[in-house]
Amino acid sequence: MKLARPLPSYLVQRYHGWKATTYAENQVWYRRLASEGQRPRAMVISCCDSRVHVTSIFGADQGEFFIHRNVANLVPPYLPDGDHHGTSAAVEYAVTVLKVAHLIVLGHSQCGGVKGCLDMCKGHAPQLEAKESFVGRWMDILKPKYEKVAEIGDEDEQVRQLEKHAVVASLENLMTFPFIASAIDEGALSLHGLWTDIGEGGLQCYDPVAEQFVPV
Amino acid sequence: MKLARPLPSYLVQRYHGWKATTYAENQVWYRRLASEGQRPRAMVISCCDSRVHVTSIFGADQGEFFIHRNVANLVPPYLPDGDHHGTSAAVEYAVTVLKVAHLIVLGHSQCGGVKGCLDMCKGHAPQLEAKESFVGRWMDILKPKYEKVAEIGDEDEQVRQLEKHAVVASLENLMTFPFIASAIDEGALSLHGLWTDIGEGGLQCYDPVAEQFVPV
Amino acid sequence: MKLARPLPSYLVQRYHGWKATTYAENQVWYRRLASEGQRPRAMVISCCDSRVHVTSIFGADQGEFFIHRNVANLVPPYLPDGDHHGTSAAVEYAVTVLKVAHLIVLGHSQCGGVKGCLDMCKGHAPQLEAKESFVGRWMDILKPKYEKVAEIGDEDEQVRQLEKHAVVASLENLMTFPFIASAIDEGALSLHGLWTDIGEGGLQCYDPVAEQFVPV
Amino acid sequence: MKLARPLPSYLVQRYHGWKATTYAENQVWYRRLASEGQRPRAMVISCCDSRVHVTSIFGADQGEFFIHRNVANLVPPYLPDGDHHGTSAAVEYAVTVLKVAHLIVLGHSQCGGVKGCLDMCKGHAPQLEAKESFVGRWMDILKPKYEKVAEIGDEDEQVRQLEKHAVVASLENLMTFPFIASAIDEGALSLHGLWTDIGEGGLQCYDPVAEQFVPV
Repeated sequence: MKLARPLPSYLVQRYHGWKATTYAENQVWYRRLASEGQRPRAMVISCCDSRVHVTSIFGADQGEFFIHRNVANLVPPYLPDGDHHGTSAAVEYAVTVLKVAHLIVLGHSQCGGVKGCLDMCKGHAPQLEAKESFVGRWMDILKPKYEKVAEIGDEDEQVRQLEKHAVVASLENLMTFPFIASAIDEGALSLHGLWTDIGEGGLQCYDPVAEQFVPV
Repeated sequence: MKLARPLPSYLVQRYHGWKATTYAENQVWYRRLASEGQRPRAMVISCCDSRVHVTSIFGADQGEFFIHRNVANLVPPYLPDGDHHGTSAAVEYAVTVLKVAHLIVLGHSQCGGVKGCLDMCKGHAPQLEAKESFVGRWMDILKPKYEKVAEIGDEDEQVRQLEKHAVVASLENLMTFPFIASAIDEGALSLHGLWTDIGEGGLQCYDPVAEQFVPV
Repeated sequence: MKLARPLPSYLVQRYHGWKATTYAENQVWYRRLASEGQRPRAMVISCCDSRVHVTSIFGADQGEFFIHRNVANLVPPYLPDGDHHGTSAAVEYAVTVLKVAHLIVLGHSQCGGVKGCLDMCKGHAPQLEAKESFVGRWMDILKPKYEKVAEIGDEDEQVRQLEKHAVVASLENLMTFPFIASAIDEGALSLHGLWTDIGEGGLQCYDPVAEQFVPV
Repeated sequence: MKLARPLPSYLVQRYHGWKATTYAENQVWYRRLASEGQRPRAMVISCCDSRVHVTSIFGADQGEFFIHRNVANLVPPYLPDGDHHGTSAAVEYAVTVLKVAHLIVLGHSQCGGVKGCLDMCKGHAPQLEAKESFVGRWMDILKPKYEKVAEIGDEDEQVRQLEKHAVVASLENLMTFPFIASAIDEGALSLHGLWTDIGEGGLQCYDPVAEQFVPV
């Protein structure tokens, strides 16, 4: 059992292409980013899903977005118990060290994690209920929102609504972090909730007054 | 205290630009990705750092990489205790549901998280030692590697070596997950360790026989 | 040593986005602007500073403002000596060819050029005093105003006052151009002095009677 | 003869609109830009022309571009004679203080300054030949390029070619500044020449090998 293998050759080839083109053309900027450090304006919390590229959607330059990606773009509630908390660490670094101005949670359609949560809540996914299921235990963060969508008859619509509730749940949990609440109070930080439709390329933004997502 | 604000207008403008160009040109593919689901060949575990865009380095297409990004591209050891474990959930989803063929850990130069860990190990960062420090507790994952670099005199070199040990630590911890070990045994999965130099655009790959990183 | 390089790809992408959206939606107007020529109502003299976008502050349409931007929004005195004078050429073109109705000088907070002038006047910036320093020789235009702020103890306040004196100095120098003085006499042109606070978004207008800036 | 007048009310009204919307939504970022200073990636040298908004074309965020605008986007040759040189001061500040990575010269169609230069070279604009003409003396910078277009029969094409030569002349003159030549040698800076067609929304980039402009 070997710990690691060489990089697949198609990726080696592509890397050399990037080095000779994109890197070569932007070398001076990359060197400055290396020597002076990053100063991203925003942090984005997005899903690991291979179909969601936030840097593409927003034409982002190297250095613009500090990006945390996890399953279903979830943020757990504030829990300073001394254990490893990767999402909380990323948020803490962005807000207290980098002092980003915007914290954007980006949800998306066809989210496998959210669909799994829905199946679990309906009792259709016993394997996710096992203590050993990391995906199941991670999706527990979203479970309290199930009651908001339980009555929806059309399952596609139900998943879609739960995907949006996942964004709202993350926003609500972000507010439980003392350093976030105080940064917002000081006018140093603003939160934003987005949801994108992969197939249609749509983008909706959460309006907390209307309590719904509206197209941007 | 408002839960969310509208999206900054420069991002709204850029989104509409993406919609009218990149999306419009790839709409057929995006619709297939939406209806048929993702089928990424690889999972990448990368840092949240705004200067590291793995999709750019490898010219990745929508749908190619399942990407988890956290502080310092760390993977904690296998610990099925029923708590929320975002990184473990992402890895489990990639390997057991999506059945990716490659799992790539990508480290990088000028890593603020690794630098913080080094400061903490030297006793120069008491704030990171507090139980409430999510960044500190997250970087605890890397602490056992400090002894490997403790004797290095030049601090820049010391950080650089610890960044590479962070990649190795993640590879080692990945091997503690039963579903990963068995997927490797079955020849269904391979692990890869990379480290990129932000300023110089270099890319090195971990060679487990030589126990060092070599340029790709 | 190459004279020019390709445009960075993130700008290429954003340009295509603009072409497909903003341009496409305004094409008829842009074509008229091209075929019939510009007819701006106002000229704005503003700083090069990347944080000051006068078109954003005033929601300016394409074709509305003829904009000259230089370091510290300075206008040198009238000096028709046959040498190249970029600022004077811009003012001459705006007033005698385009016949703009308003000439607005827009100063701003945190101005690096003004700060450099202050340092130079205090003897703290010998490098700016060298004959070869273009920034130093350009900021000489503002030097006569130093005596107005020399007694102010608080340095932040001192810079802020000198920024406002830079606007007044430019207005005074504009009046030394014969074609400006006569256009004002004929009621064909009016001058305006503004100063904006970058962080607070404030805007103040110079009142020549009270000899001070007041919020608009 | 009054030095300054109040701001026209339509601009006061628009400012308050900006303050309540764009500023309010981006306040946290503007405050950071104010307290931490600017770090623009690029300097753009563009024309004063009211129809050319580089921030719109590239969807630029506040803080991204350091922008100098003068008549016909010209850079005079290096001449450290102790006089006021606004363009040279702007370039010096961008390259030596802000250390921008890219220096972009953006020319455009229907350029009144370039047209005036052509008329002057053909002997059709005696008023521009007067020593007192600031526009004439400024356009002298471009005169040496007239011979490159003298033989072109179609005048629209002749102006268009001279507009592009204005970009090349500026690039060539930029290379005469020692601090620019050395920054390029060190790999710290790259130059870029662009020309945009106002009516058609086209964008072309100068290729120094082919010695011509090609669509981006």
